[in-house]
Amino acid sequence: MSGSRRSAPRQSAAIVAVGDELLGGAHPDLNGPWLAAELEELGIAVEHVHVVGDDELALAELLRELCAVHVLVVTSGGLGPTPDDVTRHAAARALGVELEHHEPSWSSIVALFAERGRVPTDGNRRQALFPAGATVLENDRGTAPGFVCTTERADGSPGLLASLPGPPGELQPMARAGLFPRVTKDLVVESERPVVGRLSLWGIGESDFAAAAGDWLDRATDPVMGVCARAGVLVLKATSKGDGARARVDARIDEMRARFASRVVSSDHAELEETLVAELRAAGLKLAVAESCTGGRLAGALTDVPGASAVFEAGFVTYADRIKSSVLGVPEELLRTHGAVSAPVAAAMARGARERSGADLGVSTTGVAGPDGGSAEKPVGLVVFGLATADGAVTLTRRFPAVGRERIRRYAVQQALALALWAVRGRLAELDIQPEA
Amino acid sequence: MSGSRRSAPRQSAAIVAVGDELLGGAHPDLNGPWLAAELEELGIAVEHVHVVGDDELALAELLRELCAVHVLVVTSGGLGPTPDDVTRHAAARALGVELEHHEPSWSSIVALFAERGRVPTDGNRRQALFPAGATVLENDRGTAPGFVCTTERADGSPGLLASLPGPPGELQPMARAGLFPRVTKDLVVESERPVVGRLSLWGIGESDFAAAAGDWLDRATDPVMGVCARAGVLVLKATSKGDGARARVDARIDEMRARFASRVVSSDHAELEETLVAELRAAGLKLAVAESCTGGRLAGALTDVPGASAVFEAGFVTYADRIKSSVLGVPEELLRTHGAVSAPVAAAMARGARERSGADLGVSTTGVAGPDGGSAEKPVGLVVFGLATADGAVTLTRRFPAVGRERIRRYAVQQALALALWAVRGRLAELDIQPEA
Repeated sequence: MSGSRRSAPRQSAAIVAVGDELLGGAHPDLNGPWLAAELEELGIAVEHVHVVGDDELALAELLRELCAVHVLVVTSGGLGPTPDDVTRHAAARALGVELEHHEPSWSSIVALFAERGRVPTDGNRRQALFPAGATVLENDRGTAPGFVCTTERADGSPGLLASLPGPPGELQPMARAGLFPRVTKDLVVESERPVVGRLSLWGIGESDFAAAAGDWLDRATDPVMGVCARAGVLVLKATSKGDGARARVDARIDEMRARFASRVVSSDHAELEETLVAELRAAGLKLAVAESCTGGRLAGALTDVPGASAVFEAGFVTYADRIKSSVLGVPEELLRTHGAVSAPVAAAMARGARERSGADLGVSTTGVAGPDGGSAEKPVGLVVFGLATADGAVTLTRRFPAVGRERIRRYAVQQALALALWAVRGRLAELDIQPEA
Repeated sequence: MSGSRRSAPRQSAAIVAVGDELLGGAHPDLNGPWLAAELEELGIAVEHVHVVGDDELALAELLRELCAVHVLVVTSGGLGPTPDDVTRHAAARALGVELEHHEPSWSSIVALFAERGRVPTDGNRRQALFPAGATVLENDRGTAPGFVCTTERADGSPGLLASLPGPPGELQPMARAGLFPRVTKDLVVESERPVVGRLSLWGIGESDFAAAAGDWLDRATDPVMGVCARAGVLVLKATSKGDGARARVDARIDEMRARFASRVVSSDHAELEETLVAELRAAGLKLAVAESCTGGRLAGALTDVPGASAVFEAGFVTYADRIKSSVLGVPEELLRTHGAVSAPVAAAMARGARERSGADLGVSTTGVAGPDGGSAEKPVGLVVFGLATADGAVTLTRRFPAVGRERIRRYAVQQALALALWAVRGRLAELDIQPEA
């Protein structure tokens, strides 16, 4: 990733996320990562994301500096109707031009308000102001239009400055419809446009991967490899450019798939839940889940996937022992003898979910997410997983490090998804499962 | 917020999030917003968050520039064992000092690996290197220790440069245990330390709030007000400094509480789920949920709260109509006549969750999250909520705008939590509920 970035001619970009609320900790900036990933696929390397407050003069100075260096500068946010929204003023100041009223944009704003039975305020008039010479980018999801202006870098070469609204639901369609086509036309050098292939793995850590794939990781190698770990999933990326790039990338993905055959999640979907839903669907199988320590997060991850209803039958969040018995039919005897966090109970929960719902597969989680409830025998981080099919039930026990309740729950969700995925593939032997206790 | 920031003497800070994966779009930077919010409470204003790649020389140059200006510079990430992890090298370079081996840190790393049945790699040796003169910050959740160094600003005044690991689960405890006490000791001017009060509201938009609270929003007013909207919850913040600050802030919070009495979520917990768990606990009540369109996210939000097991009985994720009948006892007749997204079905689901679990309250969601499944009569974004108690069931119907599956599900979870909270308070009349159909 970075290897290709640094060897290429300087088609670099910077992103500026504007808003006091971002510095106040209200929420993370989601636009920088999204824009960086999209622009990378066009061959434009985002080198720096700046998050700054609503200060017109400071922003103008920053934009002036960035436009002197980068072929593309994109701002997000600060295009609203209030005096705090200073991006259009700062952009005009950075470019040394005036703001001009744009009548078609004003008409659109008036029409949008009329549609909602309201009248625009004086503040909304600001939203029809654009730096002289700007191309207006329409906003079909909100009142704030964006714009794109040509710039001149310090070396005299041309560039672009684009300003987009802050809400990702408005920024993304505007970038796709208005900004990226302009970037492609004005800035993209086709021979520098990268070809990217991806492969995601489960059940291998970054350092073990590096030991097994060392020869591919040298930054001088073509394709260039990127590795990124996300809650137990390792996402590998192979990037190449120029003649034969597609063939080189495909060949490397095939090699990786062969070397890590027992670990491959997918080359299409990075997320375990998307892969699981797709493979359940292809196999014509239905799934039910019974959750204790993950408390609904496993069902939530599955039903995040559009179309999950075709394969997801039912979820049971059975926190209390009493509910494990009454809802899932876990024998009270098992709970008394082994405790709720145990292989026999995990197996019984998985069987209960399957039988109560009529699904083909039942998956269960029971563990100690913390911060309280741990013991010497059953410490915080211990999670037992169950998987039931028509052939019976198996379990898998893991002890996650004490990384906090939220991460333990997230890892447990991922492990449960992987268990189900390997079961659908009929390859449970590749995981460290235990026969039913 | 920004008003107070700009009027204060220059106790400014910058944050640098380091990692190619952040620019590759793998995930947003969560550390910048968290650190900015925490430092603001200490009276240190974060003016700029930088997100940059793993480039040692560029990072060293950036850190040198920032340390010349700011009283505090904090980096996150790039402290791992691989050659890509360049933060400690860049920090030493920026400070003009050598890296030195720190034996106690190395012993801790060896011990941590031994605990996990493993042996550290040569790469891990890098993790025991620190800029000369640094104070090591221990990491009890991972292998990467952090560090803090003294700096000298361009005007000769002293400052701090701190480097923390990237995972928020490691960064946050390290910042709390090691960095913030040092910042308080070395940098905080007590008279500049702000007093902050908070109040969160449900069911009022930003513009309606501004109209009702206009006299408090002027930046010249003391306390200074900050407003931030988060998935339907409006978080208000009142900030003041100097003599009598606590009294001024408390008085303003009391005024806000009085003016928005029917909308108040909490002045202790910003999140609806934390407030709901606390108030269920105080009332000695237990809750069960039945979810269709939210698919486990409602149960997941509740069980994110440590100690939720004291009040959360059971969750039922009933996606298919067949499961709504077999698991929750929703009459098939109701599903046929009214459809799954209807007030009678929402009420029956809530009753079913309550009765099947023996809880005091049952809450349900059923709706069209999209992207498919919408119709003219029941469009994407339509969600019906049910609430059952010993006294019977009520429902509430909302139509969320078409902002995408993920946001519709998030808003629906928030509305369900608010419905339950107002029920616990015996104040359902303040919401727009409907008697059972």
